[in-house]
Amino acid sequence: MNKGKVIVVSGPSGVGKGTVVKELIGSNEDCALSVSATTRSPREGETHGVNYFFITKEEFTQKINNNEMLEYAEYCSNFYGTPKDYVLKSVEQGKNIILEIEVQGALNVKKIIPEAVTVFVMPPSLQELEDRLRGRGTETDEVVKQRLETAIDEIKQAPQYDYIVVNNTVMQCVADIVSIIIAERQKTENMLDFIKGVLNDENA
Amino acid sequence: MNKGKVIVVSGPSGVGKGTVVKELIGSNEDCALSVSATTRSPREGETHGVNYFFITKEEFTQKINNNEMLEYAEYCSNFYGTPKDYVLKSVEQGKNIILEIEVQGALNVKKIIPEAVTVFVMPPSLQELEDRLRGRGTETDEVVKQRLETAIDEIKQAPQYDYIVVNNTVMQCVADIVSIIIAERQKTENMLDFIKGVLNDENA
Repeated sequence: MNKGKVIVVSGPSGVGKGTVVKELIGSNEDCALSVSATTRSPREGETHGVNYFFITKEEFTQKINNNEMLEYAEYCSNFYGTPKDYVLKSVEQGKNIILEIEVQGALNVKKIIPEAVTVFVMPPSLQELEDRLRGRGTETDEVVKQRLETAIDEIKQAPQYDYIVVNNTVMQCVADIVSIIIAERQKTENMLDFIKGVLNDENA
Repeated sequence: MNKGKVIVVSGPSGVGKGTVVKELIGSNEDCALSVSATTRSPREGETHGVNYFFITKEEFTQKINNNEMLEYAEYCSNFYGTPKDYVLKSVEQGKNIILEIEVQGALNVKKIIPEAVTVFVMPPSLQELEDRLRGRGTETDEVVKQRLETAIDEIKQAPQYDYIVVNNTVMQCVADIVSIIIAERQKTENMLDFIKGVLNDENA
């Protein structure tokens, strides 16, 4: 079986990448989110390896030091992160693992897994992004302005990504990402085993 | 507007690439065949620049010498070829130009236009290819065997292409090529102007 791909999705706050990733996974059964590792205790009903990998702070720190965490963050005195071994094993089994992370994390994943595919979700325009940020209706002008400035800084990093998609509509944006995944899987380097397999019929 | 791509499609005799290319162009209005140049005289109803570019042998030879023909062949004492300038102009206007050519020609196009995307159409298996070659019903065993051997030699060149698609069904194969075209157009190098355009709103 053809291997899957690691797909890293980033984009500025307000661009709607969360919705895009949710729809991508919901409508494509060969796409999945990674299972994160965390140092917090399991809540009722949570299963190790399904909701999270529950590990100790010592294990977590060791994984960071060994470059075995693709990215991580601290939140309420607990660590959360993406374990490299789980991602690579899933990909080996033909799954496309989608990681939705911010720019610094994304570039770090690319360093640890060079064959990961990085996708930056752009707004159609800054005006549209501002409308979307304002659309939440809960932010003051000052906060919207600050978020827009952060967004501009993030967009300036976009050229470091492999692909740029535009979130005009969620469906179109998801379709573009699906096309990117299909194309990446049809790249010759991923099809050499298939070619070899066909040629071996020669002796069958 | 986002530029189009030059898509070079090759594959062994019998794999069905002609049908795939016909369906690709028929079902995607941003995909078109190139207009060829020829040294033969126009037939009734043929229009210069629509059916062919009708040029003299001297003009044709000069274009070959200047690397202005992406590929060409002689047939019944007349030359037929693909003029580079027409292809590049169409791509500039946003069209994806599909060239269906054999392996040597394909690699030559890639030399002249490095940003051209080369796609090799594979059969699902040699047995299936043999069935398709035999399915024409008009060939002797000896001819089928020879064609199969030629096909094997061609398949051995497949690793030199950018992408490998499998012609299991025409629809699936066309969908894969469409995905490749979409992904290629979303590559960051083709989207830099878009990013710049969005950032320029900053001052709007």
